[in-house]
Amino acid sequence: MPRFALKIEYDGRPFAGWQAQADQPSVQGAVESALGKLDAGFATGARIAAAGRTDAGVHATAQVAHANLHRDWDPFRLAEALNFHLKPAPVAVLAAARVPDDFHARFSATERRYLFRLQARRAPATHDRGLVWQVLHPLDAAAMREGAAHLLGLHDFTTFRSSICQAASPVKTLDEIRIDEVEIPHGREYRFHLRARSFLHNQVRSIVGTLERVGAGSWPPARVAEVLQARDRAACGPVCPPHGLYLCGVGYPQDPFAD
Amino acid sequence: MPRFALKIEYDGRPFAGWQAQADQPSVQGAVESALGKLDAGFATGARIAAAGRTDAGVHATAQVAHANLHRDWDPFRLAEALNFHLKPAPVAVLAAARVPDDFHARFSATERRYLFRLQARRAPATHDRGLVWQVLHPLDAAAMREGAAHLLGLHDFTTFRSSICQAASPVKTLDEIRIDEVEIPHGREYRFHLRARSFLHNQVRSIVGTLERVGAGSWPPARVAEVLQARDRAACGPVCPPHGLYLCGVGYPQDPFAD
Repeated sequence: MPRFALKIEYDGRPFAGWQAQADQPSVQGAVESALGKLDAGFATGARIAAAGRTDAGVHATAQVAHANLHRDWDPFRLAEALNFHLKPAPVAVLAAARVPDDFHARFSATERRYLFRLQARRAPATHDRGLVWQVLHPLDAAAMREGAAHLLGLHDFTTFRSSICQAASPVKTLDEIRIDEVEIPHGREYRFHLRARSFLHNQVRSIVGTLERVGAGSWPPARVAEVLQARDRAACGPVCPPHGLYLCGVGYPQDPFAD
Repeated sequence: MPRFALKIEYDGRPFAGWQAQADQPSVQGAVESALGKLDAGFATGARIAAAGRTDAGVHATAQVAHANLHRDWDPFRLAEALNFHLKPAPVAVLAAARVPDDFHARFSATERRYLFRLQARRAPATHDRGLVWQVLHPLDAAAMREGAAHLLGLHDFTTFRSSICQAASPVKTLDEIRIDEVEIPHGREYRFHLRARSFLHNQVRSIVGTLERVGAGSWPPARVAEVLQARDRAACGPVCPPHGLYLCGVGYPQDPFAD
């Protein structure tokens, strides 16, 4: 059966997360249901695998999944047909590509990129509600950058790891953490860009929640190094809400969508 | 009774428009209801007036309204209290200001600015659904700019005016029409910025719908001049949907929100 990679964008608001769960709407379930309507290979409950199993309320602009299909689809037509059957769910297939049988969306991935959007303003978000985390007071971006620098590179990230994380090891390499500050009407937005081969469960939200404490002036930047060295979940800052988080890119040795 | 100006942002999706209507949710109704919860001057069904009476599904990032209140509120506290009582409606008061008794949000306004967001891409919008108008094929921005140039200045805009428009005259001066083209993932976004002292009903949507025909190659740019000169509603291109439209600024001889 030919294998296809799918690049998927979704609004996480109506979903209990990527992963299919009984009686709860999931992005995986929506995509599998659309596949079931057009390909016999999915009529019998086949599953798809994704690069990042995003939590409830988390968004994606470029999730990657793979599926074994019965028909040897033209990739463009496959994406079009899936988008037709995905309506009205806020899930869109941006691209599809034929991949080798040994391509695995999760295990072949060598890089994940996440964006976290944090807005500081008094008035509640309207168009961006559920798409950003909002705080009331402006943050000190320079202090957050100073704190974030302690997290770069190879570390035991036990402090920034959910208690239900299933990763074999808490040791990960954080390749990039960049914080952009942009003006929004009557406020500021802080965009956290993180890049690593892989992340622990809740790692990005634990890091952003901790850096927010630094940006608010409650924690000195050096405390980030201390809590990292503590290797103690209890030392972490408050884990921030999911709805500012976006999986925005997955890297592979060869980009399946390059043509 | 002291008069206050309010700068208001809203997501138009859940509303039947700005204007209060029986049995339909309106932005005006939401703001008046919030005012009624905090000021005795509104307990008895007083009304507010706005610079632009936006249609169903149309958004605002900076609508301006005024209200006569019973109490002489501190403007910051007024905005905070209104935002508290507006929840969970996607309406936010960005700023409040004490204004002279002769200030009128609609009649004192000397300029309105609108933005229209038009996205061209195959995959359906997800996070931006209801916030943009989407077409499938890329448009020719240069051709749209050439067509738009015919509309600048003082004209009889009968062609671009809804049949239910109540303006006294179809003659208006369009001071600016700028079209920015930006990249979005797997597509393009065209942002139409229009500025005038005032607009006719459906004028922006009639103009954007007409320019889309030019951008798609169905109409030559010169046809925009011809349909304008025709002064005939039937000559207009298709009126585009409301959900890409944003009232994004109102100008007054003195900005009530300055400082």
